[in-house]
Amino acid sequence: MVNGLTTVYMDNASGASVDKRVVEVMLPYFDFSVGNPASLHESGVEARKALGAARESVAALIGAEDKEIIFTSGATESNNIAIRGAVQRKKKKGNHIIISAVEHMSVVNTCKDLQREGFEVTTVPVDRDGLVDSGRIADEVTDQTILISCMYANGEIGTIQPVRYIGAMARERDILFHVDAVAAAGKIPIDVVQDNIDLLSISSNDLYGPKGVGALYIRSGVALRPVMTGGGQERGLRSGSENISGIVGMGKACELAKDEMENDARQMEALREKLIDGVLGNMKHSYLTGHMTKRLPNIASFRFSFIEGESIIMSLSDLGVEASTGSACSAKTLEPSHVLIAIGLRHEEAHGSLLLSLNKWNTQAEVDHVLASLPLVVERLRALSPLYQED
Amino acid sequence: MVNGLTTVYMDNASGASVDKRVVEVMLPYFDFSVGNPASLHESGVEARKALGAARESVAALIGAEDKEIIFTSGATESNNIAIRGAVQRKKKKGNHIIISAVEHMSVVNTCKDLQREGFEVTTVPVDRDGLVDSGRIADEVTDQTILISCMYANGEIGTIQPVRYIGAMARERDILFHVDAVAAAGKIPIDVVQDNIDLLSISSNDLYGPKGVGALYIRSGVALRPVMTGGGQERGLRSGSENISGIVGMGKACELAKDEMENDARQMEALREKLIDGVLGNMKHSYLTGHMTKRLPNIASFRFSFIEGESIIMSLSDLGVEASTGSACSAKTLEPSHVLIAIGLRHEEAHGSLLLSLNKWNTQAEVDHVLASLPLVVERLRALSPLYQED
Repeated sequence: MVNGLTTVYMDNASGASVDKRVVEVMLPYFDFSVGNPASLHESGVEARKALGAARESVAALIGAEDKEIIFTSGATESNNIAIRGAVQRKKKKGNHIIISAVEHMSVVNTCKDLQREGFEVTTVPVDRDGLVDSGRIADEVTDQTILISCMYANGEIGTIQPVRYIGAMARERDILFHVDAVAAAGKIPIDVVQDNIDLLSISSNDLYGPKGVGALYIRSGVALRPVMTGGGQERGLRSGSENISGIVGMGKACELAKDEMENDARQMEALREKLIDGVLGNMKHSYLTGHMTKRLPNIASFRFSFIEGESIIMSLSDLGVEASTGSACSAKTLEPSHVLIAIGLRHEEAHGSLLLSLNKWNTQAEVDHVLASLPLVVERLRALSPLYQED
Repeated sequence: MVNGLTTVYMDNASGASVDKRVVEVMLPYFDFSVGNPASLHESGVEARKALGAARESVAALIGAEDKEIIFTSGATESNNIAIRGAVQRKKKKGNHIIISAVEHMSVVNTCKDLQREGFEVTTVPVDRDGLVDSGRIADEVTDQTILISCMYANGEIGTIQPVRYIGAMARERDILFHVDAVAAAGKIPIDVVQDNIDLLSISSNDLYGPKGVGALYIRSGVALRPVMTGGGQERGLRSGSENISGIVGMGKACELAKDEMENDARQMEALREKLIDGVLGNMKHSYLTGHMTKRLPNIASFRFSFIEGESIIMSLSDLGVEASTGSACSAKTLEPSHVLIAIGLRHEEAHGSLLLSLNKWNTQAEVDHVLASLPLVVERLRALSPLYQED
């Protein structure tokens, strides 16, 4: 709703529109079927059915069984329940956690918090493309290691991790494996069984579902300690009356993702390649961040020398292009993104980053508009930069 | 959507319809204004404004300042953050918590969980009307007491507690005072300043707002330790991308409650009295549970001898009346409600309970239908009961 119709929204990793078909299935749950799934009457029965159907749709997207899915209030909660829940339960076995250097803040800060409680955390570095080496993770395993957490793909630089190798290694050594699949789910196929995943977090909004809903896959037989307590909903792991309209919306979003992901991904990938070619081919001192091919179909991420990402975002916004300079979660701080530092960028390099995250509705015309706007913005900002000298 | 138009829904304490005016303000946030409040571009600015406006509306309902409100995923999370956050922060000062015997499961079970971590919990009994005695709470205070948690009113039996007296006593002794106001907010006026409240939980759905959203009032100067960690949203106390559509909906629900509560309450109170008079006046072996006058305007709660509440609910549902036999959170267990046990009922008495919780749309005709249906149901069930002898 910014500047009328002309806005090109390419900040979908920060927040996405809800698919109209999702909103449609949610609406009746605001109006009529208000039953609490715990209620004994007919509306309660209806609510239970809706909850069960949504659970099946989420499970189907990732190759899980419905009883292995619990609903949460979003990705951050899923990551907290998975990590806190697992290590509190396993602390008699050991106190060592391994994570990659490019995890989301909800993984990073949860592990920091757990360090204060006596857990040890090893952060395994990534290469310049943002890839973590599964062998390197294996090297860090000790007899105290109880949990490995590595994201499926990074929403900031698009790099897809070799989760299958990490999963196989973890399973062999009887170490729990948690995967933050928030950026990957609905963009690339995920199979929790083939990947040997024990715990997997997904978010509804990243699948064009409503905000404030997420899910956690918990492999049968894996026990967690709850983070919050109350009425014992969601197998005691997520107390609180179920957000039925949100959950139904997330179910529909997963159903649509399963059916349409392949086409949507192909289309976004084509646009992503045009963005990457257009920027790298025509703009001086521009660089891709993240892996060239092991990359989410919707993520085009760059850095530009001599200018600040924040200024790029503001100037682009004036031209009707909405983008981001990294994770929305760190946008408020002046610190450069830990992901960009992890791939070896210096602070001043990391500050010049631009993230264009596509949605399934973005068009060729929008890409053309971005490719026409971006050079104007970058040139103007460089002209103001004391560091930049025209060559 | 159950049995078409004829369903009379009186299970609003378990889950309420969302006001159409609330849904209306939420819809644009599904479609367009998808910005993340942390984003720098125009949509981000819009999202920040919406978040700020909603915070003001919530604050205004309870006499707080906007900076004293954080948004959560619902009542259970608000209660968890308040209690866990407070005692973890205060544990150097002491380890003693006092709660009333009629608290919600999210308070009861959180305190039980904290007992395992070394905290001591005193549960103060209530009288036969469900009233807690503030003097009795004062008697239990020790030099180790760091938190008192007492609900504003009970959603199961309607009894309104003397929070103002408890608040004054707690403030005088420098003990934090948490109030679960989920059942009371929007039904009766609340003023956190006059009541000397430090922490107050409210839920959106109980105000005819969407499910999956809640808020916690945290008095300026009161510090909490977060339960979940991540991107640091909501002053670091509730990480995770904000559920903007839900929050905007809750803001609108609070605004409507502030303007319309008085009229709505008067109307519901009249219907509640008709229900109470109709049941107690015309049905043998029926009793009111909860206080006769210190009672929420929307709660008519009873018990019937010789029959099971569960059977009443099922039979009423067949006649198009949806009600509850207690808290939805304990509906799944076979245990009788701890609230009914706390007011001195024997197990078999507690099992015969019926809760009719009204909404602002319930009508006189609906009350008439309930008063016509209930005797049929109760008589039929009693005829089947081996315990019952016609007198």
